[in-house]
Amino acid sequence: MAEFRPGSPDQEAFRADLFEAGLLIDSGVPGLYGRGGAFEGVMAGFERLVAAAGAEERPEVMRFPPLLPRRQLEDVNYLKSFPHLAGTVFSFAGDDAAAAEQEAHACAHEDWSGYQAMTDLVLVPAACYPVYPAIAARGALPAGGIMVDAGPAYVFRHEPSGDPARMQMFHQREMVRLGEPEVVAAWRDSWRDRALGLLRGVGLDADFAVAADPFFGRAGRMLRASQLQQELKFEIQVQIAGPEPTAVASFNYHQEHFASVFGLRTAAGDTAHTACLGFGLERITLALFRTHGLDLQAWPDEVRGRLLG
Amino acid sequence: MAEFRPGSPDQEAFRADLFEAGLLIDSGVPGLYGRGGAFEGVMAGFERLVAAAGAEERPEVMRFPPLLPRRQLEDVNYLKSFPHLAGTVFSFAGDDAAAAEQEAHACAHEDWSGYQAMTDLVLVPAACYPVYPAIAARGALPAGGIMVDAGPAYVFRHEPSGDPARMQMFHQREMVRLGEPEVVAAWRDSWRDRALGLLRGVGLDADFAVAADPFFGRAGRMLRASQLQQELKFEIQVQIAGPEPTAVASFNYHQEHFASVFGLRTAAGDTAHTACLGFGLERITLALFRTHGLDLQAWPDEVRGRLLG
Repeated sequence: MAEFRPGSPDQEAFRADLFEAGLLIDSGVPGLYGRGGAFEGVMAGFERLVAAAGAEERPEVMRFPPLLPRRQLEDVNYLKSFPHLAGTVFSFAGDDAAAAEQEAHACAHEDWSGYQAMTDLVLVPAACYPVYPAIAARGALPAGGIMVDAGPAYVFRHEPSGDPARMQMFHQREMVRLGEPEVVAAWRDSWRDRALGLLRGVGLDADFAVAADPFFGRAGRMLRASQLQQELKFEIQVQIAGPEPTAVASFNYHQEHFASVFGLRTAAGDTAHTACLGFGLERITLALFRTHGLDLQAWPDEVRGRLLG
Repeated sequence: MAEFRPGSPDQEAFRADLFEAGLLIDSGVPGLYGRGGAFEGVMAGFERLVAAAGAEERPEVMRFPPLLPRRQLEDVNYLKSFPHLAGTVFSFAGDDAAAAEQEAHACAHEDWSGYQAMTDLVLVPAACYPVYPAIAARGALPAGGIMVDAGPAYVFRHEPSGDPARMQMFHQREMVRLGEPEVVAAWRDSWRDRALGLLRGVGLDADFAVAADPFFGRAGRMLRASQLQQELKFEIQVQIAGPEPTAVASFNYHQEHFASVFGLRTAAGDTAHTACLGFGLERITLALFRTHGLDLQAWPDEVRGRLLG
C-alpha cells in the first residue's frame, strides 16, 4: 500500500483545526474526509461561480460517476505514468462457504483479500477521462469542436497524507475542450485569465505557473522534463499550509493523446486535439478558510456575498 | 465477478431509448452510466424538493465521499449480509520493474490483478454508513437526538444488469435520524406521508410497501423473513420498466444495530436507535422520464415548474 506521507507541522495543525471546527470530518484514514455544512456551502458557492463563468460558451453538460471501465484505464496507458495513484475495484464471487470464511476473517480484521477478484471497474483518476470515449462514440466533431461541462466529479488518487490539501478522494470541477488544434489552444489560453480572476475575486492570492505531473519512477523524471519544456500543463497555485504553494487549478493540453486513443476526429477528418481545465474544489475551499479564517461569519462581506449570496 | 442479469425486453428497450436521447451515456459496462444535461437537471430539481422538505427540521448537514474505511465495513458486518454487493479498493505498491510488468499486461488487456493489493478503503454501500461513526465520535447525543442531512451521495452495488434502474453506482439522497427509540420511530413514520407526497407531487404513481433487503445465500432467506415480519424496512415503489414496480425510496429502521457497533448513546446514557431514509435519485429521474416521456419540453407544466422552476 502507498506509504503515508506526514504533513508539515503547520499542515497537521491546520488539519486538526479543521476537524475541531467541524469543517472536515475525520474518517480515520488520512486523505478521506467528510465535509461539514459550512465547508460544503463555500464549496458549492465557488462551484456556482465556475459554472456561471463557463455558461457563456454554452457547453454541453455531462456528468459521470466516480468509476470508469477498467478497459479505458488500460487503453489510455494510465498505468505507465501513474501506477502508484490508481485504484481498482475488486469484489466477491463465491458460494456460501467462501462467504462465511471471508466474513470470519473480516470480522477479526484479518486479511480477506484472497476472496476478492478484480472487476471490470476502476476509480476515476481524472474527471475528463470518461468524456473522450463518450464524445468519440458519436462520430466526428462539429466544425469548431465542442466544450463539455463535466461538472464537479469525484476523482481518486492513492496518496495518503497528513496534508489536508492532499486528499485521496476529492472533486475536480472540470471543463473539457475538443476540436481543431488552434481552437483548443486558444480556449486554454482564454481560461488562464478567467480562472485567475475567479480565484482572486474571492480574495485568494493566486499565481500562475508552468507545471508537471507526478510521473512514476525513473522514467518519470524525463516525462516531467518534457512536459515542462513543452508547457503542456499550467497550474494556478495558492499558499495554503506547508512550505510551498498548492495547485488549486490545472490546465492540461493533451494535444492528440486522448483523441488518438479514442479516434476523435475534427469536422475536417483530422485527429482532434483536447485540453481540460479542472478546479480542485476542496483545495480552493481549504485555501479560502486558510486565507479568511475558520469562522465563516468573520469573512469579508464581499467574499461572503460572492460565494454565499 | 457478479453475473450479468439481462433486463426484461421493455427494460432493455427503455435503456436503448435513454442512450439514444442522450439522457444516459453508455460506458460499455452495464449499470455504469454518464448522465446528460436534461437528466441531470431533473435529478437536481428533485434533490432540491427533498432538501426543502427536510429543512424545517433544521438538520445538520454532512457530506461524505464514495469511499469508506475498510475497517468500518468489517465492523458493521456488511459482509455477512451482502458479500455479493460490496466493492473493495485495491492498488499498486511495487517498484519500477513490477510497474513495467503490470503495464505490459494491462496494455494487452491481460490479467494484472496480481500486482494489486487491498487498501484500507472500500466503496460506500449505503449513504448513511459514514454518519454513525462521525456522530459517535462526539460523545452522547443531545436530548431528542439529531437529524443529519447526508445529501446526495454515491453508493456502489456490484450487480451488473440490463435494467437501467439497477445501476452499480448511483445517488442516494439520504437523511438519518439518531436518538431515543420513540423519537426515531416517530420520525420514520412522519416521513412516510411526506415522501409519498413529494413523489406524487411530481406526477409519479407511487405506492408504499413493507420490504426486505436482498440478503445473501441460504441464511439470507431467514433474514428477509425476519425483516418483513418486524416491518423494519419500508419502500416506496413506482412502475418504471419491467414486470414489477421498482423501489425509489427506502426507509430503514436499524433499532440498535449501528448504535451498538459505534457506541452511540442517548442523552440519558442508553443505546440510541437509528433510522434512515434514502431517495434513489437516478431511479426517481428514470421514473419521471418513463411517466412523462423522454422529451422534457412536453412534460406537464406543473411538473416542469416544480422540478425546473
